[in-house]
Amino acid sequence: MPVAIEIEARDDEARAGILRTPHGAVPTPTFMPVGTKGTVKGLTPGDLRSVGTGIVLGNTYHLYLRPGVDLVQKAGGLRGFTSWEGPMLTDSGGYQVFSLAHRRKISEEGVRFSSVYDGSSHFFTPELTTKVQEVLGADIAMVLDECPPANASREYHADSLLRTARWAKRCKETHSREDQALFGIVQGGLHPDLRKESLERTVELNFPGYAVGGLSVGEPREEMLQMLSLVASRLPADKPRYFMGIGDPVGILQVIALGVDMFDCVLPTRLARHGTALTNDGRINLKNAPYRRDLRPLDPECSCEACKGYSRAYLSHLVRENELLAHRLVTLHNVHFTSELCGRARAAIVEGRYREFIEAWILRYAGGRPLDVAR
Amino acid sequence: MPVAIEIEARDDEARAGILRTPHGAVPTPTFMPVGTKGTVKGLTPGDLRSVGTGIVLGNTYHLYLRPGVDLVQKAGGLRGFTSWEGPMLTDSGGYQVFSLAHRRKISEEGVRFSSVYDGSSHFFTPELTTKVQEVLGADIAMVLDECPPANASREYHADSLLRTARWAKRCKETHSREDQALFGIVQGGLHPDLRKESLERTVELNFPGYAVGGLSVGEPREEMLQMLSLVASRLPADKPRYFMGIGDPVGILQVIALGVDMFDCVLPTRLARHGTALTNDGRINLKNAPYRRDLRPLDPECSCEACKGYSRAYLSHLVRENELLAHRLVTLHNVHFTSELCGRARAAIVEGRYREFIEAWILRYAGGRPLDVAR
Repeated sequence: MPVAIEIEARDDEARAGILRTPHGAVPTPTFMPVGTKGTVKGLTPGDLRSVGTGIVLGNTYHLYLRPGVDLVQKAGGLRGFTSWEGPMLTDSGGYQVFSLAHRRKISEEGVRFSSVYDGSSHFFTPELTTKVQEVLGADIAMVLDECPPANASREYHADSLLRTARWAKRCKETHSREDQALFGIVQGGLHPDLRKESLERTVELNFPGYAVGGLSVGEPREEMLQMLSLVASRLPADKPRYFMGIGDPVGILQVIALGVDMFDCVLPTRLARHGTALTNDGRINLKNAPYRRDLRPLDPECSCEACKGYSRAYLSHLVRENELLAHRLVTLHNVHFTSELCGRARAAIVEGRYREFIEAWILRYAGGRPLDVAR
Repeated sequence: MPVAIEIEARDDEARAGILRTPHGAVPTPTFMPVGTKGTVKGLTPGDLRSVGTGIVLGNTYHLYLRPGVDLVQKAGGLRGFTSWEGPMLTDSGGYQVFSLAHRRKISEEGVRFSSVYDGSSHFFTPELTTKVQEVLGADIAMVLDECPPANASREYHADSLLRTARWAKRCKETHSREDQALFGIVQGGLHPDLRKESLERTVELNFPGYAVGGLSVGEPREEMLQMLSLVASRLPADKPRYFMGIGDPVGILQVIALGVDMFDCVLPTRLARHGTALTNDGRINLKNAPYRRDLRPLDPECSCEACKGYSRAYLSHLVRENELLAHRLVTLHNVHFTSELCGRARAAIVEGRYREFIEAWILRYAGGRPLDVAR
C-alpha cells in the first residue's frame, strides 16, 4: 500500500498517528491547506513547510480546466508544476462539479457540466477523473462521488449513494498507479440508515482510506457531528479517515474527537484574504477599529513570521489598503495557527488528555460567545 | 553628517561608491524599491534583503494620509511600523501632490490638495513635510518641491524653481533631526538655463545630497539624458546624487553612466503585477501565449527564488488566474533583477569597463528592437 496510517495513540475515539505516503510522513491529525489552482493562495511551498503543513490538497476540477492536464503532465505532475515536494492529495472534482457548475446533468455514465471559467462543456466520468488524478500524481486520489444538495430528498440521497458506490467501483477498477492511493467517499446526507448503507457499500470495496463527504455543507453542527460519529465508529480502524471540508478551529477539534485523521477547508485561507485572523482568543477582524492602533502581534503566543515581525496595527493598515502583503501574512498566520492547533491536539491525544484540552481550548477561543460554527 | 558617500571608483562620469547611513552601508549605484504605503507590494523585508535591496523608499504623501503619522510615530517610526530595519529614504510628498491630486492650489506658503483616498483637504508646507519626515524617521528625507507638468510654460518653470528653492531653504531651516539627512532637489524642466539656475540655488544651500527631479515624466529619453548630464556634471562630486523616478533597465544604465548614485521607480514592481518580468533578453509578458507551455525559468541566469523554483509555464498560469503568488514571485524577480543589474554596473565601473558593459548589455536586452524607454 503506498499510503497507510500507523495509529500511535488513542484517547476515546480520537487518534494520533503517522500517515505514510510516497513523499513523506505526516503526523495526524493533520489539516490540509487547499491549493485550489495549483497554489495555496499567496504562499510558496517554502512558506507551507515553515508553518508546519504536512500535506497539501489540489483541486482536480480547477486544474483540469486551467491550465489543463497535459501541461501539468509535461511539467512532471502537480508536484513538478507547483514545486511542492511533499505529500499531496487531489479531490476528484466531484464537489466542485456539484457546487460550482450552474448547469450539470448526471447520468449513470458520469456528469456533464459547464466550466465555471468559460461555460465550455465537459464530461466527468469515474474513469476520467481517476486517470486525470493519476496524471496529477498526488499521493492520494479520490473517487468521483456525487455530493447532493443538503435539501435533496431522502429518495434522491438513496439513489445517489448507490450511484456513488457504483462510480467508486469503476474508479477502483480504473486506478492503476501503484505509487498512489485511491480513497473511497461515504455519502448519504443526514439520514443515518443511508449513511450506514453508503458506508457498507464503500468499505466492501476495500479502499486504503476513506473520506466522509456531504457534511459541513450548511447543516447544524450537532447533526454533522452525529452523522460523523455514526460513520467514523464503523470505518476500519486501520485506515486513514478524511473529513472533507472543515477548517474552523472548533470544528476541527470536534471531528478529531470523533476519530478523524485528515481534513481540508478553504476557511483559514479565505478568512485571511478577508482580513480575519484566527487567534487563541477567537477571531480578529483586522478591519475593525480597535486593531488600527493595536501594536501587539496577531496572537502573542504564535511564532509565525507574521506574528514575530508585525503588529496588528500594521496588518490592519495593509488590510485596509488591500495590500498583497496583508493577504500573504494573514494567510501564513492562519495556516500556521491551524497546523499548530492540530499539533496541540495530537500532543493531548498522546498524553491521554484530549477531552480536557478541547474543553479548555474551546472555552477560551469562544470566550463565552456562542460556538463559532461557520464553515 | 549622518549620510555620506564614499566614491570608490569612477569610469568617465559613472561612479561606484558606498552610501553610508545610520542604518547601514549601501553599495552604489543602487535601485530603491518603492514602498508606497509602507510595503513594497507583496514583499516582506526579508524578501527585500534576499534580493539585494539596500535602501527602500517610502511615500510621505500616502503614509501621511493612511495610516497617519501619529500611528507610525507610536510604532517607532516607519522602520518600527514596517519591520524594515535597513536604510530608508522618504520623499516629501511633493511629487504625489502634483501627480495624483485632482485639485490643488499652490501658494508661497505651501500647497493645498485633496486626498486621493477620500477627497479631504490637506495643506503641505515645507515645514510640515519636513517635520512629518522626521517622524517617519528615514535616513534620508527630501525637501518639498514643486514638480510642474512637463508641458508647463518656461515662465511657469522659472517661477516654480525659485519657489522650490525658497521652500528648500525653509525645509533646511526646519530640519533638526541629527540622524537624518535632508536632500535638496533640482528642478527647471527641460530648459538648460533654468536647470542651471535651480542647481545653483539648491547647491548654495549646501545639502548633504542632491536629487534631480522633474525628469522621466514623459519627455524623450534623449532630452532627459541631456538635462541630467548638464545637472550631474555640476553637482558636488562628494555628495550622493539621486535621480528621481527611473526604473527601466536601459534608463538605469544610462543615468548611472552620467554619474547618478541612487534612483527609484515603481516600474519593476508595477510591471510584475501586470505579469511582465524583466530578463537579460528583454521583457517577458507572461500573459502571452508562448509562455503558457514554457518550462524554462523566467531568466535562466537569475538566482532568485522565482527563477530557482518555478517555470514560466507555472508563473504564466498564476498570472492568468490572477493568483497572489504570481504578483509576489514576479515582483521578487523584478526587484532582484534590477538590484543585480546595479551590482553588475558597479563591478563594471570598478573594473573600468562600463562603456563596454552598457553597450553589450543594451544590445542583448533590446535585441535589435527600439530601446525600451517606458517609465
